[in-house]
Amino acid sequence: MMENFAIPFLKKKNNSIILHRTLKTVGIFESKLSQIIGGLNFMFGKHKNTSLAFLPEIYSVKLRITVKDKKFLNARNQIQKVEKKIREKISDYIYGVDNDRLEEVIGKLLTEKKISISVAESCSGGLFSHKITNVSGSSNYFNRGFIVYSNKSKIEDLKVPKKILEKFGAVSFECAFWMAKNVRKISKTNIGVSVTGITGPLGATKEKPVGLVYIGYSDDNETAVKKYFFGEGRERVKISASLAALEILRKKILNIKIETLQ
Amino acid sequence: MMENFAIPFLKKKNNSIILHRTLKTVGIFESKLSQIIGGLNFMFGKHKNTSLAFLPEIYSVKLRITVKDKKFLNARNQIQKVEKKIREKISDYIYGVDNDRLEEVIGKLLTEKKISISVAESCSGGLFSHKITNVSGSSNYFNRGFIVYSNKSKIEDLKVPKKILEKFGAVSFECAFWMAKNVRKISKTNIGVSVTGITGPLGATKEKPVGLVYIGYSDDNETAVKKYFFGEGRERVKISASLAALEILRKKILNIKIETLQ
Repeated sequence: MMENFAIPFLKKKNNSIILHRTLKTVGIFESKLSQIIGGLNFMFGKHKNTSLAFLPEIYSVKLRITVKDKKFLNARNQIQKVEKKIREKISDYIYGVDNDRLEEVIGKLLTEKKISISVAESCSGGLFSHKITNVSGSSNYFNRGFIVYSNKSKIEDLKVPKKILEKFGAVSFECAFWMAKNVRKISKTNIGVSVTGITGPLGATKEKPVGLVYIGYSDDNETAVKKYFFGEGRERVKISASLAALEILRKKILNIKIETLQ
Repeated sequence: MMENFAIPFLKKKNNSIILHRTLKTVGIFESKLSQIIGGLNFMFGKHKNTSLAFLPEIYSVKLRITVKDKKFLNARNQIQKVEKKIREKISDYIYGVDNDRLEEVIGKLLTEKKISISVAESCSGGLFSHKITNVSGSSNYFNRGFIVYSNKSKIEDLKVPKKILEKFGAVSFECAFWMAKNVRKISKTNIGVSVTGITGPLGATKEKPVGLVYIGYSDDNETAVKKYFFGEGRERVKISASLAALEILRKKILNIKIETLQ
């Protein structure tokens, strides 16, 4: 990582050089990140002109390190030091740097490891597949997707047992489980991912509020599901769910432990 | 339309009132629109402070009428006159006004007319379905979508004849035809829509360049296909193709003639 160190932004100002480096995280809140990273002064050491900005977006946070110094080498060394310290604490959450896109990072991993995937989407309505297929060359690993918006399509196309839908409903741990498992089997891919939830504002109940989403993951060894609450806002829920599904995919490929994935 | 006249923007400036009205078009280029609309002075009549701005976006153009007048009623009347004259010339291309979104306009039409749809996407990779499902209540008319990225999925999930793929390829009039027809039949919906094309930069040939897209439409009476060239740029092609598919859907529901749809 350090060997590939890039200089995204470099300018002279008052005879000083300003260097930026952005670390991109997904699936962890700003407050939690800040808590894990801890005291910034300790992290910055003796360097006077170092700062760290937390830039939150939907379901993701960018960490921008900024260093100002009269000498380029000093600035670069300080950025590298701070990046290393941050990575020691939150490496599992960092998917890339600067202009990296999560779907591209995953695309590279899938290509390198020759892993094929298929997707079963309900509430995300195609957005998850859209993100994956934004990457050139994605046809090498993305086999197919099913947008099973109706219960009928869940049963007919993905063979989700009718009993499961009757007993637990379409937005359930069990439905996400069968969607992920069966989309993998039907598509004959290495991995299957599923998304089912309530985007709202219609369709919510007291037990199943807007923002409740289950994401399923299935490979040859296991099928598991994680439950999320993304809050209100139709497009916000779709974006959060798609990012969370991508993040599960990334962590699984890299063998990073995922909390509460059962 | 006139009865629902809205005032999106209203302010006093130098004792004058400025009114805006935006007409939103899709599927027609700025130059062509300008040519059809013709001489603006003739359209504006004797009113001195009227202007029309052409605001192009990907595969769509917004027409913003601006009128400045000392009196609100004069300004409103002039806006209404100009809007009427524009509509007389290009009504088929105008899907909405001001903050209307194409997918919402279509959603209302589908709901009113109780029409159900299903979707078969290849090159648009889920974006078309994502747009449709951005509308609250879309589960009432959107039954399901298939993202048949691989030839295998086109054959297995949509029963596109293998011979068709071998003879004409996945990016062809014939493949779009079968995708639209079969997705409708399999989903048992009133309408089926398909999208297949080359988003690039990989996968293009001399005969099938980046930006070549076929969009299929199927209902109980007919199955038809239209060929497009959207130019370069992966995401641009996906956006253009999704908008074109929405536009075909809108025109078909409203029984508006579509050129070169065969």
